[in-house]
Amino acid sequence: MTVSPNSPVIRIGVAGLGRAFSLMLPTFLNDPRVRLVAASDPRPEALAQFQRDFQGRAHPDIESLARDPDVQVVYVASPHQLHARHTQAAAAQGKHVLVEKPMALSLRECDAMIQACGAAAVHLLIGHCHSFDTPYLATRELVQSGEFGAVKMIHALNCTDYLYRPRRPEELDTRAGGGAIYSQAAHQVDIVRLLASDRPARLRSALGNWDPARPTEGAYSALLWFESGAYASLNYNGYGHFDSDEWMDWVGEMGNAKDPHSHGSARRKLAAAATPQAEARLKADATYGGTAYAAPARGASASAGLLHQHFGTVVVSCEHADLRPMADRILIYGNERKQARMLPPPRAPRLEVIDELHDAIYLGKPCLHDGRWAKATLEICLALLESHRAGHDVILRHQV
Amino acid sequence: MTVSPNSPVIRIGVAGLGRAFSLMLPTFLNDPRVRLVAASDPRPEALAQFQRDFQGRAHPDIESLARDPDVQVVYVASPHQLHARHTQAAAAQGKHVLVEKPMALSLRECDAMIQACGAAAVHLLIGHCHSFDTPYLATRELVQSGEFGAVKMIHALNCTDYLYRPRRPEELDTRAGGGAIYSQAAHQVDIVRLLASDRPARLRSALGNWDPARPTEGAYSALLWFESGAYASLNYNGYGHFDSDEWMDWVGEMGNAKDPHSHGSARRKLAAAATPQAEARLKADATYGGTAYAAPARGASASAGLLHQHFGTVVVSCEHADLRPMADRILIYGNERKQARMLPPPRAPRLEVIDELHDAIYLGKPCLHDGRWAKATLEICLALLESHRAGHDVILRHQV
Repeated sequence: MTVSPNSPVIRIGVAGLGRAFSLMLPTFLNDPRVRLVAASDPRPEALAQFQRDFQGRAHPDIESLARDPDVQVVYVASPHQLHARHTQAAAAQGKHVLVEKPMALSLRECDAMIQACGAAAVHLLIGHCHSFDTPYLATRELVQSGEFGAVKMIHALNCTDYLYRPRRPEELDTRAGGGAIYSQAAHQVDIVRLLASDRPARLRSALGNWDPARPTEGAYSALLWFESGAYASLNYNGYGHFDSDEWMDWVGEMGNAKDPHSHGSARRKLAAAATPQAEARLKADATYGGTAYAAPARGASASAGLLHQHFGTVVVSCEHADLRPMADRILIYGNERKQARMLPPPRAPRLEVIDELHDAIYLGKPCLHDGRWAKATLEICLALLESHRAGHDVILRHQV
Repeated sequence: MTVSPNSPVIRIGVAGLGRAFSLMLPTFLNDPRVRLVAASDPRPEALAQFQRDFQGRAHPDIESLARDPDVQVVYVASPHQLHARHTQAAAAQGKHVLVEKPMALSLRECDAMIQACGAAAVHLLIGHCHSFDTPYLATRELVQSGEFGAVKMIHALNCTDYLYRPRRPEELDTRAGGGAIYSQAAHQVDIVRLLASDRPARLRSALGNWDPARPTEGAYSALLWFESGAYASLNYNGYGHFDSDEWMDWVGEMGNAKDPHSHGSARRKLAAAATPQAEARLKADATYGGTAYAAPARGASASAGLLHQHFGTVVVSCEHADLRPMADRILIYGNERKQARMLPPPRAPRLEVIDELHDAIYLGKPCLHDGRWAKATLEICLALLESHRAGHDVILRHQV
């Protein structure tokens, strides 16, 4: 993290005060390099809370937010299907854009976003995504050091209760950008690409969609080949049974200590919502501005007990060692011995996103997670859907 | 195990006193239902030890062994490329045949073996294979009970030091039946088929072959689809780095307690062998009859501290629970809670093989692991090689 008392501040306008924003809020609250100055959201209670919390301006829509002269970066945290339109609106007003994953729902939308930001000469950064997490960035550095030889195989498996977290109806409709491919594969694909440091070439997938009450993808497995001949096996199961955090020292996705005895909690909470409307309300209530919303801690307590965020088990097989990123260390299983490289604990969650944004704006450093990078990840997510449907490999054409 | 003091004895003639035999010996020594009466092997020291240990007859070749009137079952534990010829020789003399995995190296060989045993009206059983292990058989029973709904996805991952165990040269030559596909995928495929209880339909694979000093497959990942639409992700890495027994309570493949600090031991032992000849000798020395061979224990001490054998991590995702076979229990991760079904400890290793052999010979019960079953597994192993080479799915045509 490149921060000093004199670091210039990044003034952020937030488009969408929902769950993605709630998950980024601990970062914004605890990084002196950012200030939240304005927001737009259809929920008046969220805007009211934003005004109280940050003395920020409330805007009726994205266009008004984008025009706000005090906004330097628009953080697009609206629903997936609005990412493209909101990005274009921000770029049209000369604002840098930080967009939540997935970047968009089609490659055409990605192209429009890249084109709009390029024409406006503003930065386009896609995040947070778990590929920003320090364990993966540090593992990538080890890979690129060459110490362990070339990457030959990557194995990733994440088993979660994703499908049973409260959702709005569109989040359970693949055609509307719902389901595990857009929401979860976006993380895993990004991580695997980052670690392989190689250009993906083709993909074959199998999808799981087996709960009629939640009729979207809840699971997948895929093979992803890289140009060098290396390959990755990507595996995800969000049906809330086996929890692979058992293999991650019981540290959860958010870097939190997880109770091994909390099994089934997502389904139990969800049982309170009898209808799709009730479920959407359950989600909204727990989100920023909602009646059940709990504000994150500030200062030292914000990171107390937290380790790094992660996205399940990953084993990177290089020629001379397997590397396994964990929440507090990288495990290195070499030819002769195994060792652990400890990682300094996070000072607050997701500071890596602000690092990249800050370095782009103030140091002119190219973003790693830029539009072309994220478009390539979306291409692979779309290929996951397409390969399963078509029954054969999908050749990738937009990789970087 | 169906054994009583009056159980009739199965008189076994062993074709090949090498490593496979060494691994089965604890079973033969500790199961009162079997008696070793004869053997053939090209190594005189192995035959001499067999005569000393069992007062058994030593035969110069398979034909002589097969003609031995006291032999009831020929156990074909010779190198892979001899399985077909040795099976046919045994069947020609009206002997039942127990064949080590892989059944053979081609489907044509499998057909000849099935045909020969059918014509002679003798049983053909292929094993040991880890799909005989009680944790998998018990998990299959849970699956077939229907309590957890249909199988939808299976994930299997095994990371071992397979490639660095001492080998004869042909074991590192895929064309001669060497490498992880013939030797290791044969286990994992069999287990996954057994657990899915469904007919495999197609396969896509990626292979890893990245140590020029051991130029055969050391790793693979594959997607296997079943007729119902369920799929499995099969993953293996034998390059001796990450050891997935870390996720199996540090219980090793043979049910043994494993020292987490023994990392790298296979490579260290192998370093003593400077040439392929020295390596083959290293293997022979540690095998039955060799100078460094250590006889297994008999009686109660044979199973002291042993849990069930296994072949790495397996997660069977059914509609309403994930099932995870472990060396001493089955973990059930349900909708509401997780639980463990404890398994009775083994009285000796691999008794399940003798169960199946005994029940076929004396109770007329059809073998599960018969010729057609094992041919179907070989077809999938061959498809693993072919899909990688061809770059597309391979349709399976000989499944049962």
